[in-house]
Amino acid sequence: MRATVIYGTQDIRSEDVPDPVLSTGGDAIVRVVAACVCGSDLWPYRGVVPITTPRRIGHEFVGIVEAIGSDVSKIRVGDFVIAPFYDCDMTCANCRNGVSSSCLHGGFWGADDQLGGFADGAQGELVRVSHADGTLVATPSMPAEHLIPALLTLADVMGTGHHAARSAGVTKGSTVVVVGDGAVGLCAVLAAKRLGASRIVAMSRHADRQAVATTFGATDIVQERGAEGIARIKELFDGIGPDCVLECVGTQESMEQAIRSVRPGGTVGYVGVPHGGAELPIRELFSANIGVNGGIAPVRNYIDELLPEILDGTLDPSAVFDLELPLSEAAAAYAAMDERRAIKVLLRP
Amino acid sequence: MRATVIYGTQDIRSEDVPDPVLSTGGDAIVRVVAACVCGSDLWPYRGVVPITTPRRIGHEFVGIVEAIGSDVSKIRVGDFVIAPFYDCDMTCANCRNGVSSSCLHGGFWGADDQLGGFADGAQGELVRVSHADGTLVATPSMPAEHLIPALLTLADVMGTGHHAARSAGVTKGSTVVVVGDGAVGLCAVLAAKRLGASRIVAMSRHADRQAVATTFGATDIVQERGAEGIARIKELFDGIGPDCVLECVGTQESMEQAIRSVRPGGTVGYVGVPHGGAELPIRELFSANIGVNGGIAPVRNYIDELLPEILDGTLDPSAVFDLELPLSEAAAAYAAMDERRAIKVLLRP
Repeated sequence: MRATVIYGTQDIRSEDVPDPVLSTGGDAIVRVVAACVCGSDLWPYRGVVPITTPRRIGHEFVGIVEAIGSDVSKIRVGDFVIAPFYDCDMTCANCRNGVSSSCLHGGFWGADDQLGGFADGAQGELVRVSHADGTLVATPSMPAEHLIPALLTLADVMGTGHHAARSAGVTKGSTVVVVGDGAVGLCAVLAAKRLGASRIVAMSRHADRQAVATTFGATDIVQERGAEGIARIKELFDGIGPDCVLECVGTQESMEQAIRSVRPGGTVGYVGVPHGGAELPIRELFSANIGVNGGIAPVRNYIDELLPEILDGTLDPSAVFDLELPLSEAAAAYAAMDERRAIKVLLRP
Repeated sequence: MRATVIYGTQDIRSEDVPDPVLSTGGDAIVRVVAACVCGSDLWPYRGVVPITTPRRIGHEFVGIVEAIGSDVSKIRVGDFVIAPFYDCDMTCANCRNGVSSSCLHGGFWGADDQLGGFADGAQGELVRVSHADGTLVATPSMPAEHLIPALLTLADVMGTGHHAARSAGVTKGSTVVVVGDGAVGLCAVLAAKRLGASRIVAMSRHADRQAVATTFGATDIVQERGAEGIARIKELFDGIGPDCVLECVGTQESMEQAIRSVRPGGTVGYVGVPHGGAELPIRELFSANIGVNGGIAPVRNYIDELLPEILDGTLDPSAVFDLELPLSEAAAAYAAMDERRAIKVLLRP
């Protein structure tokens, strides 16, 4: 089969690789219908996370089950399935607590310590899924073709944006600022709107992303950053700041922006994978009662909540995909996202 | 009048000082009925927070209103009042949001930048209160003498313990660990019990404090600290840890203990004033979805909720006071707490 392999900085290749094989009894082979490139895939692409040996990449996909192990009971051959960006059993204490991203027996796509052997990256034609019954969610029937992009967002970005909003405690009437205008930030806008936020500020300098944010429910756009951005946000919210700030980038600058924008007693919900040297400034948080909640989004737990609304069309995050390419052109997809020519690229095998 | 003044490390004196005078129209003079020494008063006493010039000290008191300014409308002369450990107007945006400790016009006892001039420390015979109508809470009638210690805990430690529990999201059925066996930690045990926690572990090595913790609702005592303490806690809670950890100390060691004990997806509620160099380890928090919420407790906001239960006897934190001394012996009170011969000392003018 063909799959995407990262060799190093800006070196993404589409290659022939061995087909995955069932090996644990609880696993399944899924033929990928659609995959995509994540903002976090750009960290190794840019060399921020060094690549020492070539490895498979990608962690978001939807597809059709092609084979199942003998112990699989919920998932069936022919099912259309959504996979979260990790695998999990949904039976351990952490999964039952709603934190499947900390599954005691789970792992990540592309890792080589996965139960039963190597776990394929998602940017390929086939993927072996270790805990098929826990990890995969089957739709009730074969979804219409036009729903594929929205369903694919449940693999990561919509669930992750939702996690930022949930972690910040967004509820009916909340005032919200979203830091980051990537696909996750835009989904966070949509999630905040869905949870009933009364005012949602998107911080963005790009007209195309501002347009999507507005479609998703942003009431205001702030272009300024740093001290100017913070001053502008405070000004918009009674001089004290909003109830919730959703941090969807992961840099030191974006986290500082978030912490210094939120009002006393407010909460920063963060989902940006932390990069940069700084830890959280405890005295600053303590003195103003600013809470910091978030982490690796347990998107598997959220699929059950969000899937029905995607299927009936009331929730539609598909606008985060503004470019579609064949899987064989994965390198072009990475370049387009790296150069900010695309928000998020959908790949079709 | 007589008041307590700190001159430097282990140098606490009882002195004659000028009586406070009304100066802003919105202020009141309160004759102190009972005050006390706080764990945070020990930081300057121990020299951890250096004292460069002598200053008044103490921030917890209850008393009877002796005089009011012309603009005071809610508080009356003769009222028995509880003061939080800061002053606040209860009308600004932060106070209305429940974060009166970040009052836009408030201040702290003993500070010299207080509205209308110097703010007396609470360990004295009289205290001028800047925003009397916002800061002070009057009891419906003169309380019985035996209720004075419990009422005094509303000035700080009971509200602060409650804040730790609220910040950690303690609710019916929560599993809870409390780090710190000082008066705040013990009140946090009581607060967790009151909020319906199903299991409450008090981390303590002192028999007298263990006894109070058990009276307050602790179901288990853990004596170990550091890596051993964390292992013991994990073992008690399915190998993953409790839902909530209440950090009531403020050192780097205690915060690490808290963060490493809580389960993935759990929350650390912290109220210990941060001391020591470390900031919060964002990668550790991110990878396990550990939330950190808390700060300077908005105890004024909590008095309304807790006072009725103190008055009807259903909530009784008074056991945190295990020594009572005359105000003139404040130095002995500090020494007793510093040497851990007393949990918390009540002072009577």
